[in-house]
Amino acid sequence: MTMHTPMSAPNVTAPDDAVLDALRAVVGPEHVLTTATHDLTAWEQDWRRRHRGRARAVVRPADTAQVAAVVRACAAHGAPIVPQGGNTGLVLGGVPDASGTEVVLSLQRLQRIRALDRDNLTLTVEAGCVLQAAQQAAADAGLWLPLSLASEGSCTVGGVLATNAGGTQVLRFGNARDLCLGLEVVTADGRVWDGLRGLRKDNTGYDLRHLFIGSEGTLGVITAAVLKLVPQPAAQLTAWAAVPSLAAAVALLGVAQRHLGPGLTGFEVMNRLALQLVRRHFPALPQPLTEQDAPYAVLLELSDPEGETHARAQLEASLTHALQEGCALDAVVASSVAQARTLWHIRECIPLAQAEEGLNIKHDISLPVSRIPAFCAQAEVELQRHAPGARLVNFGHLGDGNLHFNVQCPEGADAAAFLRAHEAAINTLVYDLVRAHGGSISAEHGIGRLKAATLPRYQDPVALALMRAIKQALDPHHRLNPGRVLADGQAPTAP
Amino acid sequence: MTMHTPMSAPNVTAPDDAVLDALRAVVGPEHVLTTATHDLTAWEQDWRRRHRGRARAVVRPADTAQVAAVVRACAAHGAPIVPQGGNTGLVLGGVPDASGTEVVLSLQRLQRIRALDRDNLTLTVEAGCVLQAAQQAAADAGLWLPLSLASEGSCTVGGVLATNAGGTQVLRFGNARDLCLGLEVVTADGRVWDGLRGLRKDNTGYDLRHLFIGSEGTLGVITAAVLKLVPQPAAQLTAWAAVPSLAAAVALLGVAQRHLGPGLTGFEVMNRLALQLVRRHFPALPQPLTEQDAPYAVLLELSDPEGETHARAQLEASLTHALQEGCALDAVVASSVAQARTLWHIRECIPLAQAEEGLNIKHDISLPVSRIPAFCAQAEVELQRHAPGARLVNFGHLGDGNLHFNVQCPEGADAAAFLRAHEAAINTLVYDLVRAHGGSISAEHGIGRLKAATLPRYQDPVALALMRAIKQALDPHHRLNPGRVLADGQAPTAP
Repeated sequence: MTMHTPMSAPNVTAPDDAVLDALRAVVGPEHVLTTATHDLTAWEQDWRRRHRGRARAVVRPADTAQVAAVVRACAAHGAPIVPQGGNTGLVLGGVPDASGTEVVLSLQRLQRIRALDRDNLTLTVEAGCVLQAAQQAAADAGLWLPLSLASEGSCTVGGVLATNAGGTQVLRFGNARDLCLGLEVVTADGRVWDGLRGLRKDNTGYDLRHLFIGSEGTLGVITAAVLKLVPQPAAQLTAWAAVPSLAAAVALLGVAQRHLGPGLTGFEVMNRLALQLVRRHFPALPQPLTEQDAPYAVLLELSDPEGETHARAQLEASLTHALQEGCALDAVVASSVAQARTLWHIRECIPLAQAEEGLNIKHDISLPVSRIPAFCAQAEVELQRHAPGARLVNFGHLGDGNLHFNVQCPEGADAAAFLRAHEAAINTLVYDLVRAHGGSISAEHGIGRLKAATLPRYQDPVALALMRAIKQALDPHHRLNPGRVLADGQAPTAP
Repeated sequence: MTMHTPMSAPNVTAPDDAVLDALRAVVGPEHVLTTATHDLTAWEQDWRRRHRGRARAVVRPADTAQVAAVVRACAAHGAPIVPQGGNTGLVLGGVPDASGTEVVLSLQRLQRIRALDRDNLTLTVEAGCVLQAAQQAAADAGLWLPLSLASEGSCTVGGVLATNAGGTQVLRFGNARDLCLGLEVVTADGRVWDGLRGLRKDNTGYDLRHLFIGSEGTLGVITAAVLKLVPQPAAQLTAWAAVPSLAAAVALLGVAQRHLGPGLTGFEVMNRLALQLVRRHFPALPQPLTEQDAPYAVLLELSDPEGETHARAQLEASLTHALQEGCALDAVVASSVAQARTLWHIRECIPLAQAEEGLNIKHDISLPVSRIPAFCAQAEVELQRHAPGARLVNFGHLGDGNLHFNVQCPEGADAAAFLRAHEAAINTLVYDLVRAHGGSISAEHGIGRLKAATLPRYQDPVALALMRAIKQALDPHHRLNPGRVLADGQAPTAP
């Protein structure tokens, strides 16, 4: 047990603060923050500001070696660790619980761009680097990191990988895991796995990379990664189409995929109510089409290696085809970058408009694309049966089968009271139906603590048993993010 | 212990054949093959015909439930299991060792196409389905399964996934793992994980799919999979370019990636000697260019959603650009499908021409694309220093950084004697240099038994420790493919 207390320690430590002393010895006293000396709101409160935990301390190591030493120090004192990046998670995976025992391990000081390899099309970057900074590093070299999220100005590369984030370009480039070629990870016992290889093919044993990606900090702490880049497209065009139904949106997706091939990099769907709420709460935003009351709208993005003339001809031809086939009612291609930005802005304003409208019940679900129309039809009927007047704000990444299937209280009702009365039952209604259609109750947000107790009802029992065995093998004392993903194993065991 | 012996059992069983009786009870006596009744060459001998093992029995279950029962029966009797698909592996991962104790579990009878979902672009198929049959099922629906290997007429979907096979379209579509959305797996204790979901986003816990893919049958037995399909391209064109150096080939890759974007679906490189051997041993094959003695040739493939006219203009424009930049000396676009097939045929004949030329030392390595010229220059010098006159047949999937860096004995020398004298040292020379350049000693073939003893020298020790912990967690008695991938844990433990 390390009892070294630096002279510059900001306050005298209590006997049970041995772990804090050990942490101060590793990172320096100024990088071990406690409520005694700091306002920890930024680390303790979740992104949606619905939950506030209490950290034993926030520790901010400077590099990988310090992260490993922090993990070893916590292990020696039996202290549970919550790794945290930009704290933009939506499922309470990166904030401490209320116990006051969890040490928040912030990766924010590990923010270096370690390397950019133009010929290999790779970027090696530390976990705490903000996604936007990584995007910018690629852009500065004339390349493209095709991973884009609403939170990209705050979220970190490590967090994005730990949660296998999705975003708007999954249709073409896959999830975060698909853009990662290599990792550096600190294990639960404080060793460093150097897997930072920029290889597109490597069959030398089990794929540890994919095991750590998406494990939400419960198996190891990601400290750096090698990301895949692609050449920047010569042109990017955005279009907007009004469609008569979800089935028509699925048909339009098929038309676009056949005509545009891999050039189709975005395909977002929004229902009428989602757009009505944007108009209500952001009336200054320009509207893309006269056909404002179509049941659904679709936003398409084409990325083209040739140039704008070719891209426009291609996009217009495929939309013309869609109009002829009846899967679109009306369509427009943005005539400028500013117009394209407006179209994306409308899409991105939906969650904000929902927040303005009041508390709502959020779902982040995925389904086979072919099942989406049937699922939504059935879910809307059951929702109305359960809570007449409840308003469905349905939007998302249709190309990936990912819907944010959110429920707002009836017009004029008390939102808080509605949630108290109906949230649990509506979650069960939606998730049971998702399962019946072969879908997932968490498409891109993960499980965290928020859904950990719900997961066993919807995950295959053999899969759960395998996950528990893996957790036990890689973190036998349950010290890394205990209670996240797998609800059991909440309490870490003594060293 | 099951002692049931069906009346129709072909021969009286010895007392130690209790496991065979148990297997006969599961799959029927006609699907438990032993040397007493059958020629087992097809299952016992490896694809390259360099090794012949001895199986206790070959068992051929009909469906997933039977696979699970076979695994349970073997577990009850402590019998090690070697899962096998089309037996086209190159690293002794799917053939039994010489002990005569291993039960070969052949997946060949699980060959159904379970579902094809056009709107979701997915194909659900059983493990024993031959890859070509899966490709054909997609093509029959107007879709494309973009996974293509030399062995596609014999290899199975299960084997391709268990080994995370690569092939010629990885540049655009990734390895086998990247084309798999879901799996059905029998675990080491004979349970069935039903993970057959056709979802493009699913963050509900650890990614078991990627853990089983590429684990070479050591963690579980894949029985079925959901594969991603894409729309068929409207046109596919092939070009051939002579290039002055490997650095020029890397520059040509960059030009093609910028000009053709994701349309570039193939980029193969071949050195002069590789093509000379093809000309020597297949003199009837037409030759693509007058520039036959360029140091390297490149084969490019463009897949285009628009059509042949557009594709040809694009490909010609990018090759013209490459000629102007000096990264190509000469280039030709195939003018017909037949010509394109000939170009691919030349590429595919290299291993055959090598076999005609005589025994050789094969390497399946990968490197960051940017390191390939320096690696090859250095490796050639060291090779000549070690074995003057040794001939390097260097070809592969340059776009993925994957080279088949093969060594043939000096012209006129005794190949067998050369291999006896130099194989081990040349392997070490090549692999040590691969490691120094941040590469992998197995890009697409895997580890199997052939490289299991070599792996620890080149794999990160923390990675190896993690892999051993995972093996221990998922197959604690080391019954599934013991000694493959991880050389330790060879002997299965008693039940």
